[in-house]
Amino acid sequence: MSQPSSRSYLGSVAAFRSGNDSPRDFLERCLTSLEQWEPHIHAFVNTDVAAARAAADQSSERWRANRPLSPIDGMPLGIKDIIETANMPTEQGSPLFTNWRSPRDAATVAALREAGAVIVGKTVTTEFAATEPGPTRNPWDFSRTPGGSSSGSAAAVGAGIISAALGTQVIGSIIRPASYCGCYGFKPSVGSINRGGSFDYLSQSCAGVLAASLGELWIVAREISARAGGDPGYPGLSGPRHPPEVRGPRTIAVLETAGFATVTVEAKKRFAEFVEKLKGAGIRILSRTSNKSVADVENAIQDAGRLSRAINAWEFRWPLNTYARDMDRLGLSEAMRKRLSEAEAMTLEAYQDLLKERSRCRNVYSALASECDVCVTLSASGPAPKGLASTGDPSFAIPSSFLGIPALSLPLFKVDNLPLGLQVLGFNERDADLFAVAAFLQKS
Amino acid sequence: MSQPSSRSYLGSVAAFRSGNDSPRDFLERCLTSLEQWEPHIHAFVNTDVAAARAAADQSSERWRANRPLSPIDGMPLGIKDIIETANMPTEQGSPLFTNWRSPRDAATVAALREAGAVIVGKTVTTEFAATEPGPTRNPWDFSRTPGGSSSGSAAAVGAGIISAALGTQVIGSIIRPASYCGCYGFKPSVGSINRGGSFDYLSQSCAGVLAASLGELWIVAREISARAGGDPGYPGLSGPRHPPEVRGPRTIAVLETAGFATVTVEAKKRFAEFVEKLKGAGIRILSRTSNKSVADVENAIQDAGRLSRAINAWEFRWPLNTYARDMDRLGLSEAMRKRLSEAEAMTLEAYQDLLKERSRCRNVYSALASECDVCVTLSASGPAPKGLASTGDPSFAIPSSFLGIPALSLPLFKVDNLPLGLQVLGFNERDADLFAVAAFLQKS
Repeated sequence: MSQPSSRSYLGSVAAFRSGNDSPRDFLERCLTSLEQWEPHIHAFVNTDVAAARAAADQSSERWRANRPLSPIDGMPLGIKDIIETANMPTEQGSPLFTNWRSPRDAATVAALREAGAVIVGKTVTTEFAATEPGPTRNPWDFSRTPGGSSSGSAAAVGAGIISAALGTQVIGSIIRPASYCGCYGFKPSVGSINRGGSFDYLSQSCAGVLAASLGELWIVAREISARAGGDPGYPGLSGPRHPPEVRGPRTIAVLETAGFATVTVEAKKRFAEFVEKLKGAGIRILSRTSNKSVADVENAIQDAGRLSRAINAWEFRWPLNTYARDMDRLGLSEAMRKRLSEAEAMTLEAYQDLLKERSRCRNVYSALASECDVCVTLSASGPAPKGLASTGDPSFAIPSSFLGIPALSLPLFKVDNLPLGLQVLGFNERDADLFAVAAFLQKS
Repeated sequence: MSQPSSRSYLGSVAAFRSGNDSPRDFLERCLTSLEQWEPHIHAFVNTDVAAARAAADQSSERWRANRPLSPIDGMPLGIKDIIETANMPTEQGSPLFTNWRSPRDAATVAALREAGAVIVGKTVTTEFAATEPGPTRNPWDFSRTPGGSSSGSAAAVGAGIISAALGTQVIGSIIRPASYCGCYGFKPSVGSINRGGSFDYLSQSCAGVLAASLGELWIVAREISARAGGDPGYPGLSGPRHPPEVRGPRTIAVLETAGFATVTVEAKKRFAEFVEKLKGAGIRILSRTSNKSVADVENAIQDAGRLSRAINAWEFRWPLNTYARDMDRLGLSEAMRKRLSEAEAMTLEAYQDLLKERSRCRNVYSALASECDVCVTLSASGPAPKGLASTGDPSFAIPSSFLGIPALSLPLFKVDNLPLGLQVLGFNERDADLFAVAAFLQKS
């Protein structure tokens, strides 16, 4: 196989208008790529090629008539398989849900179709978007994990089969696989993308996007929010309908996170070189040693992994309890049965204490907003590790989940010819500002 | 038919321990009542009598061994038919979901079963818990509406078929039918009861309880919260596991709400008499004319109906859009199709403005907490109106939904031999305090 390269859609739009290309032709190139890659990377659980072709034909007509429904009209997309689709099963990476069908589309999927997007298939998720891996392999090295839980979405976008895909993140499920598979990843502010019709209930979980470019991350998320909003009661992703204009930052905080101790030498070197370049460009850099607010944040997120997993455990008590009792306990992985046991040993009062601690940490982070434009760190401790039994260390991705803040992974680094992401972290409900600075950083 | 009378479960617990009665015998009395009433009131969509008998037998053994799982072990309950149950269909009052089956229990149902409760059946809801009525009739007068949307839950509890039932409220769907059917109703602080596995997505919607007594409202809700918590990210209903001790209030605010103009003469009289009695007992009464904070609240909730409906419309855009496109548009009632059209004409920005206004009104109400213990008003503008084409005027029930605060309906009044509720309104996440004062009020 050749080296993976992502497949941007937005760059073809001019050719759709002129008639030199069409969404249907674009889709056919995607399907060729699917045929080449899929036997090796197993990114999809189900596809509906006939429906995709029909949708692409309709889109082609709209572009010819210069009446696209949106900038993503005709864009081929994958949908993480915890998100309901009317035309394909939703299996959640669990044998309990093999061939399970919903009669409806999730809010995000309904919005995408309204915007004219072409749904190619359902992408592999770990079991219930948690830890038990699916069959997906990393397109950069088939012996390595693609990361999880949005494994298939990252692998399919990284391989260039599709231009973008939906993912979700409650621990590290967008940022980590985006980093490992060399694509862009966006975990929005918590609540910014409507999770209706997704088996995605946890309080710090968030729907997001993996895509071939920064602009596509924004456009896909923003076109969804315009039609489906955020979770009920949340304002939803706001900002321009086009990708936010580049804006140079004045001050950037460098975060280590709890993961820094495990970073490989090479990865550390790439990141340090990048930070030096920023300094060279006249950007002020804050760190835990130079700034008290940054040190406070580092302390606040030091235990984010343990706290997040405990919060998730209580919030997963249901539905795991009814799956175990009313469906088939042995259809749950050992990891899931263990999680259920942990949840059943917890009390509501213990959970209430965890929420208070998370809320305190979120306030600590908010205070940093007056001191810097964004934070940067790595997206993972190194490139994708060998083996498929684990989806890798999520430590770097946990803080944005725990803090409810927007995060981006930009595929800016290479280590041993494998991709590694720069992670850029913003402030709650200021996702557009994060994109504006990220656009600057990726040109740095 | 004889006059309806509710059927308390907690009063029988001593007899279960002594062996003079059993949950199975209690259930059989319920089933006799079901046979008598159901052909007239149509409270249930589906029942599973065999499963209920099996569960009651197991409960009987536990009580005999003096090892009940909880105070509600063996209690016969009904479940509003938007809430998933593994052993019965969940039809949502819509022909689109006739015989639709989920493989699992909702979080509340799983918690109830864990507590030993006996699920008798699924109770009639209006279409998607909105406005289009189901077949249920009021047990006090079969020519009158039971109220909605928790129509079957209220009618079944009011008739004494079951001791308690789950309901939900986003506009007036617990307080109003409880008032019309002469049972107790509890709409908790928003987020206090886990809505996982319920087709119940709207931001001001809340799961709650209808029951034969104030104590049963509390015990059922509290036993659920201990096992399922609140919506993810919310602390969940807190307080003692037994019904909160009676506490006499010092100051009570009388609210009129937007509904007061339509109250019948007799209803107004009952309420005025009640307020006079409170004054006579030395309780300080605040009203819009005597107190600025109360006047501010009355102004803040004046438009709560319009604002709530607009918020609900946007939040109902999905799933109505996929039901109309992927299932059958004509399977939606005309009211629902209209709601979808309204939603599709809205923008995310308009919704964001509505949320800001609701948040402002919630702050206005919070300020009242320093001035009084609770607020009181009627639960409805009068007893259940004649006819089944409408579920009645929800004006009095809207403020608690809009403000996200806990509310109780106590069946303290009679007008023309028909029940009418006193509504008691508390402050956010202080549900136990509300119950303590309500216990005093019902003895006044």
